[in-house]
Amino acid sequence: MSDFDDVTAIRRRDGSGSYDADLHPGWAIVGKPNGGYLLAILARAACDVVDTPDPLAVSAHYLRAPSAGPVEVRAEALRHGRRVSTSRASIWQGGKPCIEALVTSGALVHDAPIEWNSAPAPTVPPPEECVASYNPHFDVELFDHIELRVDPVTAPFPVATGEPVIRFWFRLRDGSDPDVRTVLLAADCGPPTVFNLERIGWAPTVELTTLVRGLPAPGWLLVEARAHHLAGGWFDEEAAVWDSTGRLVAQACQLALAAET
Amino acid sequence: MSDFDDVTAIRRRDGSGSYDADLHPGWAIVGKPNGGYLLAILARAACDVVDTPDPLAVSAHYLRAPSAGPVEVRAEALRHGRRVSTSRASIWQGGKPCIEALVTSGALVHDAPIEWNSAPAPTVPPPEECVASYNPHFDVELFDHIELRVDPVTAPFPVATGEPVIRFWFRLRDGSDPDVRTVLLAADCGPPTVFNLERIGWAPTVELTTLVRGLPAPGWLLVEARAHHLAGGWFDEEAAVWDSTGRLVAQACQLALAAET
Repeated sequence: MSDFDDVTAIRRRDGSGSYDADLHPGWAIVGKPNGGYLLAILARAACDVVDTPDPLAVSAHYLRAPSAGPVEVRAEALRHGRRVSTSRASIWQGGKPCIEALVTSGALVHDAPIEWNSAPAPTVPPPEECVASYNPHFDVELFDHIELRVDPVTAPFPVATGEPVIRFWFRLRDGSDPDVRTVLLAADCGPPTVFNLERIGWAPTVELTTLVRGLPAPGWLLVEARAHHLAGGWFDEEAAVWDSTGRLVAQACQLALAAET
Repeated sequence: MSDFDDVTAIRRRDGSGSYDADLHPGWAIVGKPNGGYLLAILARAACDVVDTPDPLAVSAHYLRAPSAGPVEVRAEALRHGRRVSTSRASIWQGGKPCIEALVTSGALVHDAPIEWNSAPAPTVPPPEECVASYNPHFDVELFDHIELRVDPVTAPFPVATGEPVIRFWFRLRDGSDPDVRTVLLAADCGPPTVFNLERIGWAPTVELTTLVRGLPAPGWLLVEARAHHLAGGWFDEEAAVWDSTGRLVAQACQLALAAET
């Protein structure tokens, strides 16, 4: 059991699609649980309710940011299929829905033959030559539990690079290897890429979809996040996650709102 | 009223979040209504139920392909917000859910200032120098209603290019200009990009998320679709849509299953 398994644990209430969970204050940014962490909890309930091992596509719409503490996770099977199943999951706190998700899940095959790949892992200096993640402006409790080593040419601090791209190595600080849920966290745990455009501040995610493309090998994950278009305050952020063998294991895309300049 | 407005019309049942709609047999591929067409119907109900003009992020999970004919569209408001609202929408046929979607919606601003863009429209020959869309293997009824002009270097027929990228111009055949829902159709109306890897056949979409980034100007839309990774039969397909002024108006990503070779 990794720490991440512990903090994403769900306890099913008898005879229902409702689960209890506790949002850990340490997996947060200024007191608000990280979006990728919440996605992992949703995926866990969504898979449990249709009895599948692996989330394949997780789409979450963020209604309001929950606080650390107890939450209810509601899950409902929408379709049981031979190859994939679909379910709905949501996180509730104080009687209000906080995040709604749709999840298609099934069983990923270890080392499925790669028939095409045009998304090779980018070239990044090894972790020991990258810079430790930090944020001089606000408290990122999450960094006590995950270790990010940021490619120096993409690091937003101390000086914004002018290009909304951030690449980093990722691992859990407790030494455990990544699993299928860890990649959901990895795909949404870095600083918002718009920090590199000097849009520093809270950048709420409105929608985040993550596709899990493979089961990660042990070791570091490598993440590249990139925004393509920022207009009227709205930006997209695309992320790709590779495992230590260079295999693509996740792809994510989100719509978020940048802090005002 | 465009033909597309007509075929995406929804009629609200009294005092409920249920709507009646008719899936038109002409907006289909081998009898199965196109996924982007279905997305536009879902977005319409999802916006109606929270009284917003524009879908911003639409995430749909495809459970089973509906047939042409009458369907029920169920929509439910999840949160009414000042800037954005969130709703759930689903299409039902024969008492079974076919597509489930989550939609964040609000009001898009015409010509919002572009603060960053690294996704310029690709260079493609003008429509008259591109090739008309056709499919020698099966019947694409949809092409009677939309006109695609495919960049010859990316056209999958008569010979697969070997690279899963397809670029094309798009317009409605009735001569009407694109609107916010047309871009949802445009983002998912081309041949599957894996046709260029000789994976010809039905490529069912499992999950499709489209972000609407702007209101399109009159004229042709330009679409580029690209798959990055095909493994174990699963592929991603990313699409971007630009309007006639070169402005990015939509981004989409889907997870789909390729036909067996």
